[in-house]
Amino acid sequence: MNRGNVMRAGVWLTGARGSVATTAVVGALALRNGLTEPTGCVTAHPELAGAALPPIAGLVFGGHDVATITLAKKAEQLATAGVLPARLVQAVATDLAEVEAELRPVPSQGTQAETAAAIVADIEAFRDRHHLDRVVVLNVASTEAALEPQPAHQSAKALAAALRQSGTVLSPSALYAYSAFSAGCSYVDFTPSAGARLPALEELAAERRLPYAGHDGKTGETLLKSVIAPMFRMRNLKVASWSGMNLLGGGDGANLTDPGANAAKSVSKQRVLGETLGYEPEGNTRIDYVADLGDFKSAWDLITFRGFLGTPMRMEFSWQGCDSALAAPLVLDLARITASAHHNGYAGPLTALAFFFKDPIGDNPDHALAAQWDELRRFVSGLR
Amino acid sequence: MNRGNVMRAGVWLTGARGSVATTAVVGALALRNGLTEPTGCVTAHPELAGAALPPIAGLVFGGHDVATITLAKKAEQLATAGVLPARLVQAVATDLAEVEAELRPVPSQGTQAETAAAIVADIEAFRDRHHLDRVVVLNVASTEAALEPQPAHQSAKALAAALRQSGTVLSPSALYAYSAFSAGCSYVDFTPSAGARLPALEELAAERRLPYAGHDGKTGETLLKSVIAPMFRMRNLKVASWSGMNLLGGGDGANLTDPGANAAKSVSKQRVLGETLGYEPEGNTRIDYVADLGDFKSAWDLITFRGFLGTPMRMEFSWQGCDSALAAPLVLDLARITASAHHNGYAGPLTALAFFFKDPIGDNPDHALAAQWDELRRFVSGLR
Amino acid sequence: MNRGNVMRAGVWLTGARGSVATTAVVGALALRNGLTEPTGCVTAHPELAGAALPPIAGLVFGGHDVATITLAKKAEQLATAGVLPARLVQAVATDLAEVEAELRPVPSQGTQAETAAAIVADIEAFRDRHHLDRVVVLNVASTEAALEPQPAHQSAKALAAALRQSGTVLSPSALYAYSAFSAGCSYVDFTPSAGARLPALEELAAERRLPYAGHDGKTGETLLKSVIAPMFRMRNLKVASWSGMNLLGGGDGANLTDPGANAAKSVSKQRVLGETLGYEPEGNTRIDYVADLGDFKSAWDLITFRGFLGTPMRMEFSWQGCDSALAAPLVLDLARITASAHHNGYAGPLTALAFFFKDPIGDNPDHALAAQWDELRRFVSGLR
Amino acid sequence: MNRGNVMRAGVWLTGARGSVATTAVVGALALRNGLTEPTGCVTAHPELAGAALPPIAGLVFGGHDVATITLAKKAEQLATAGVLPARLVQAVATDLAEVEAELRPVPSQGTQAETAAAIVADIEAFRDRHHLDRVVVLNVASTEAALEPQPAHQSAKALAAALRQSGTVLSPSALYAYSAFSAGCSYVDFTPSAGARLPALEELAAERRLPYAGHDGKTGETLLKSVIAPMFRMRNLKVASWSGMNLLGGGDGANLTDPGANAAKSVSKQRVLGETLGYEPEGNTRIDYVADLGDFKSAWDLITFRGFLGTPMRMEFSWQGCDSALAAPLVLDLARITASAHHNGYAGPLTALAFFFKDPIGDNPDHALAAQWDELRRFVSGLR
Repeated sequence: MNRGNVMRAGVWLTGARGSVATTAVVGALALRNGLTEPTGCVTAHPELAGAALPPIAGLVFGGHDVATITLAKKAEQLATAGVLPARLVQAVATDLAEVEAELRPVPSQGTQAETAAAIVADIEAFRDRHHLDRVVVLNVASTEAALEPQPAHQSAKALAAALRQSGTVLSPSALYAYSAFSAGCSYVDFTPSAGARLPALEELAAERRLPYAGHDGKTGETLLKSVIAPMFRMRNLKVASWSGMNLLGGGDGANLTDPGANAAKSVSKQRVLGETLGYEPEGNTRIDYVADLGDFKSAWDLITFRGFLGTPMRMEFSWQGCDSALAAPLVLDLARITASAHHNGYAGPLTALAFFFKDPIGDNPDHALAAQWDELRRFVSGLR
Repeated sequence: MNRGNVMRAGVWLTGARGSVATTAVVGALALRNGLTEPTGCVTAHPELAGAALPPIAGLVFGGHDVATITLAKKAEQLATAGVLPARLVQAVATDLAEVEAELRPVPSQGTQAETAAAIVADIEAFRDRHHLDRVVVLNVASTEAALEPQPAHQSAKALAAALRQSGTVLSPSALYAYSAFSAGCSYVDFTPSAGARLPALEELAAERRLPYAGHDGKTGETLLKSVIAPMFRMRNLKVASWSGMNLLGGGDGANLTDPGANAAKSVSKQRVLGETLGYEPEGNTRIDYVADLGDFKSAWDLITFRGFLGTPMRMEFSWQGCDSALAAPLVLDLARITASAHHNGYAGPLTALAFFFKDPIGDNPDHALAAQWDELRRFVSGLR
Repeated sequence: MNRGNVMRAGVWLTGARGSVATTAVVGALALRNGLTEPTGCVTAHPELAGAALPPIAGLVFGGHDVATITLAKKAEQLATAGVLPARLVQAVATDLAEVEAELRPVPSQGTQAETAAAIVADIEAFRDRHHLDRVVVLNVASTEAALEPQPAHQSAKALAAALRQSGTVLSPSALYAYSAFSAGCSYVDFTPSAGARLPALEELAAERRLPYAGHDGKTGETLLKSVIAPMFRMRNLKVASWSGMNLLGGGDGANLTDPGANAAKSVSKQRVLGETLGYEPEGNTRIDYVADLGDFKSAWDLITFRGFLGTPMRMEFSWQGCDSALAAPLVLDLARITASAHHNGYAGPLTALAFFFKDPIGDNPDHALAAQWDELRRFVSGLR
Repeated sequence: MNRGNVMRAGVWLTGARGSVATTAVVGALALRNGLTEPTGCVTAHPELAGAALPPIAGLVFGGHDVATITLAKKAEQLATAGVLPARLVQAVATDLAEVEAELRPVPSQGTQAETAAAIVADIEAFRDRHHLDRVVVLNVASTEAALEPQPAHQSAKALAAALRQSGTVLSPSALYAYSAFSAGCSYVDFTPSAGARLPALEELAAERRLPYAGHDGKTGETLLKSVIAPMFRMRNLKVASWSGMNLLGGGDGANLTDPGANAAKSVSKQRVLGETLGYEPEGNTRIDYVADLGDFKSAWDLITFRGFLGTPMRMEFSWQGCDSALAAPLVLDLARITASAHHNGYAGPLTALAFFFKDPIGDNPDHALAAQWDELRRFVSGLR
């Protein structure tokens, strides 16, 4: 096997034709060709830049998607929407066609065990074809509905048996985590979906000595919460209410018009506050779909707080971010770090990657961004 | 001398009849009487609560002011303005009258050496009268115009000689720092004024083994900058512009209609960004006086930034804070910590107190609030 | 009968112990005693000030409420919350006690016909006791759930018969409209409740030659919509989306946590846009309850729009208003104008009062504030 | 001469290669070719659409500019900046080249009388070449510094004599107004520059029976002020302070870093409030240049106001508009209406066009947008 800095790393994307994946791929190709700067890539930060990570330029991409739009077409749409510069899309057209050749339709056949086997076969063929040392399976597909608990989720053995029966035992994201581990790959969940969060899958990852990370990339309102809530806490100011309104266009927004998904996401967004402040302020986080916003997202938060002697004060913020432009560089960061962590022998949940996530794996995670940053730096600088 | 936790500490306020001082005093008296919570007091934070600091309830107050309004009248005005709860002002009326008896007009006679001697006499009499182990001289007077450099500022000896001549060698805040050190007291500058920032005064503090801290309490827009700018930096997002508009009522605002004071404050507010981000984004910080806002301050900031592949994004925040309610608890914190630092033998600039200030003393200070917090915690937990 | 300007007018408030009613009463008493200015009173506007309306100082108040808190206590609470100045509340204490003597518990006995008779008796006794020429029954009670349609709502005769049966035929607001008309009084609905909006009640008002007005006082977000939406229309700019978030404390907010009431109010708020612009922009209006806001309301709206050649643009506004302080002067305006309209022989819906309401009575009402203002001025200046 | 609806109208733009002019021309060509909608064109509003105005599709463009960039290049830059859709720029390339052939460098020779004669010659040649019935000279050049008053400004005769001397008697915009009137053309000033605002020029316009309009197109913050300030006035709410911060990129912003131009513009922006409300609220309007904003402009306004019994309330708005996309359609509207007004025999100031301007011509202009709209509709519907 190669030394860390020349390790050959691949990224298998589930949801490979979506906005985030396409932006990540076009950006990586543009970086490979020296056409852009790694703005927004945390691993390009001066304090991490010297780490022993596989270079972005060397990442090899493949993946699955239920959609059939070509990467070239999707990239063109994103250029029209102001997410990608048109000149970059044109400049990487040839490289993009090569990635296109690595994408496959989502397998779907017979039992879930058979589907998993087909997924594994696709990933292994990709790894062999490109002589990759490590492949990171990374979920950037649409948020799925919550998974109904089943007894088969409790152990690896019960799960393997259940998957061989007809019926649905695992949600798509969990089936990908299962397949990734079965193929000897690490797994990252960039969405709020179930992913590897089942005892059976945790057992499987431990058994195979494979690392995994998640959940739900932190790209907007929650990113701000992770620095503003600690500010109130450090100053011992009492947050009385924190209300948020998120307006999303794009696929993610449309998906969240489903009240179930919306509710789950809202609760998760509000929980960060309680865990950071040590008490639950009043207020809700609402999510609404506004198609006109396209790939952009607007969030407005109103925070009322009390100062000395109870004096009422308030602040508001308004965030206007492009989800893909914020998420895509983190996808590249996570691929680099997870591949290296796997190479360094880490197995199980990568809690040191909490910096990237709204809902980080682990008990009592620290949501304060600065603390997460310190932990990330320590972790990354220890990689060889 | 007593053990740290029973040390008798006094606070000599310059600007003792102003809004911040009055709020600090009323609040301390209310806390002493168990009538309120120490909201906004950093030293009451669970992680600092066990430290060896003189209790707020035991702080003894005195001070100077050029104004003649009584504390009771000022407190009543602040109650009408919604800064202090009327019931608290009434409840501490007797205690407040005791503090009133400790206030003196600002001495002003003959040479600056003679004025300093009169200041020293007032402070020493206060210390003796109350058997105080330590007195912290703390400047919460109005921001003064910048001091013209003079040769006498370069050494303690030259300064002592110059003060004995007629003419103005030191601005009021610097004369207070001189007097504090002459009286064997520590000194804290909560304003952007010169204070102890002169080689001659630094020499004097070192000679007498006295600690000092400053400058300019961080209570609003800059507090937010100190968490939001590091967020952009940690995420490697490129801040293209950061523009701020500050609308201030109250005395501080009126004072800043003076273009000189305004310009100085604006430049200092913008500098934090360059030092945090590592580059200077475009944009200015403006300050305007709006009497109708009273003791409240409104700030609006617009930040434009670039994500992956240069995608332009933006955020805005709007802050509506009560300056006195934010500053007063920090005044109490600084008094407690500085008295204890003095007691622990610290001398010279207390760089570990950067957490409290917009423009912290020291070379290349770290403006990131989380880093400042870590340093503060370490410092305070080391006090005995 | 007296001439208009010496007409004796009374106001019978349903919800007389609520925040809006208490603020209206305290304010009217303060104006009577020359202690305040009529800020926020539209009828005090220079262009209407000369109109033949009963003076605020002469209005006599009475009313019903299910709550039992005294007006004095309620006023004290409002003073603590910053809605009423404490000095005014103290200054009108005696006058307030006189109004207190005119308040009655809400009658509730046997059939709705019997309840209505008891209401009528209370109102007529009030009118007689004070020798009032006109009494305006004005609904400022909490928003009620929507009324189930019933055949008895279709004619005055059927309604009278049905009310004599056991069971609930009319919602409280509608029963008040019925009682008002039965007592020969005009009726104003300041809430979104049903009020006089039933064929049977319209018939009754026409028969008795009585005027009525409504619905839902326009005090915040919708007030802004009624000037900003016409701006976009006059400039022929295309509004693509308009999303609103309303955060309410106080009783009104708590009441709206009921999903039904919330939905009704949200739809009504959004409809104004379609009727003003001539097309329905995307977006929703959300309402959330945040107790910490007290009597204040915060609204945030994001409007995305297209300019020439489709260029996307946007605006946001944030409104921080005190519902009672905005509504109370309108209550006094409506009482004055409706009493005078009655006196001038107007009967049926007073469509010229659309200026005051979110959801004005009438077909295809013009929601543009400037047009409503012109109509109001014409109407009021025609009164004698 | 033709009937109004087939009148041939030309537009002579001063500043013809700027962002506003280029956007107006590209937009008119796109409309001529049926490629876009007249969004933002007030004369395309349903209530004005039937008026007897020369159609946009028939407008012929020419003009002067000191810049030498081609229209095609400028349009391409605007497409990159997101102001113009790239597909439209490509689609009108041939038509745009035709307009390019009608642009001339700004004449500059000998005395100002000689320069004016050269300007007149260019305009007359344009009118003859295209058999135009009417030419509107329309100023969209950069804002110029204020003009020093001179005796020659007082009469047409003195002015003509002074222009024949060496030296500068008129600023560029005023020299254009002079030239326009000398050539028998109407004149519109879309900028805050002097334009026709001199007694000598007013005399000349009256003498030649020529109409003119101005000043300073209303496209952002002032547009909002013209609906929000009347709202406060109609509701008799007391505006205590109104503070504004305008952040401008683009050429206009850079130009305003000149303190003189900035101050003039700020004062004019604040004056609207006093004239609308009937009193001067506290506060300033600030303008800052932020290159990163490009052709977009951000404004933030904070309004504090008092309701009933003095209750303090506030609102904020934030506007993110593209100056060119807002101004360009108004330029087309003004050309159409002014050409028709000229045709209908109107002479002197067109006060009925106040709807379009921040600083409308005339004594005591009504700044309320709705009133301006009514006046505009009446005026336009009277044209034949």
